[in-house]
Amino acid sequence: MQKKGILFVVSGPSGCGKGTVLAEVLKDPNLYFSISATTRIMRDGEVDGVNYHFYSDAQFEELIREDGILEYARYCNHYYGTPRKPVEDQLEAGKHVILEIDVVGAMNIRKKCPDAVLLFLMPPSLETLRHRLCKRGTETMEVIEKRVAQADREMACADQYDYIVINDVLEDAVADVQAIIRAESCRNYTEK
Amino acid sequence: MQKKGILFVVSGPSGCGKGTVLAEVLKDPNLYFSISATTRIMRDGEVDGVNYHFYSDAQFEELIREDGILEYARYCNHYYGTPRKPVEDQLEAGKHVILEIDVVGAMNIRKKCPDAVLLFLMPPSLETLRHRLCKRGTETMEVIEKRVAQADREMACADQYDYIVINDVLEDAVADVQAIIRAESCRNYTEK
Repeated sequence: MQKKGILFVVSGPSGCGKGTVLAEVLKDPNLYFSISATTRIMRDGEVDGVNYHFYSDAQFEELIREDGILEYARYCNHYYGTPRKPVEDQLEAGKHVILEIDVVGAMNIRKKCPDAVLLFLMPPSLETLRHRLCKRGTETMEVIEKRVAQADREMACADQYDYIVINDVLEDAVADVQAIIRAESCRNYTEK
Repeated sequence: MQKKGILFVVSGPSGCGKGTVLAEVLKDPNLYFSISATTRIMRDGEVDGVNYHFYSDAQFEELIREDGILEYARYCNHYYGTPRKPVEDQLEAGKHVILEIDVVGAMNIRKKCPDAVLLFLMPPSLETLRHRLCKRGTETMEVIEKRVAQADREMACADQYDYIVINDVLEDAVADVQAIIRAESCRNYTEK
């Protein structure tokens, strides 16, 4: 009997280095990164099925009705969500699946998939986060302060997660996430 | 505030490679291996405080009365147990502590220290275990069959543990145990 894979949910505030950490972790071919679905317009350079699965409103709403979406939200008049089938197919095939979603989505996954393992990636401090966002040089100070305030709100939800990884030194954060995935593969699910 | 260490309990049947795996894992200077106390006679080559803490019956019983022993058992008319103070001192100092004890001791630790993390090290099969014990060439077939039967009974308790590590390839088992220790260091203990 093929051992089922584990569903890992990764959240963390904008600027905490989630993308960089996950890019390293996802070099492991036994991991499958879940691609979100959206109804927003495809942007230049984006590829359907790579950046997102691009659906029409009608298609997305049909999926919701069929319980084909694990979690979804509406932002700026568009749907964003996680299609259920590819996640379940990969788990059945024994692959671990990584979902990168926000704290609200993560809490919804916890309800629907109680076996999911939730990781929160943290900046060492809000000060470090502000500094990193400034260094990017792509945002105005006003936007940066909004993001820092948003990060502060999100970090208050970290205590709902199974693991908290602090991204101070990139290599350490990557090794932490890899260790969590490896350890969870040894977890005894028959436990009392 | 210094973050407290975590108490890890490692069990596994005789011949499963516990000693070899732990010797590798304990090269990490942040881990402290708890030395058991016993009232049996010191054997040639043994050193007090290295192989065991050697106590008199009166000393051991005094410790039991003072609740100075985390768990203990009597075999062949001698006490064997885990002194509480060194374990607690190391945990307070932020070091992770490794206890290597049998399944009965592990269940007692679970009751006394509910935050302890329990690992069970498994041979890939009883057949492999029998083969390994034969290869050692130090025991009669009768003793080997007794050990295999004992391993079978112990393995039935594995479902009481938090993690099950299968020692098929040594390097993999070592990496599994190291990953579990690293992952548990990221575990969110404030979790709902």
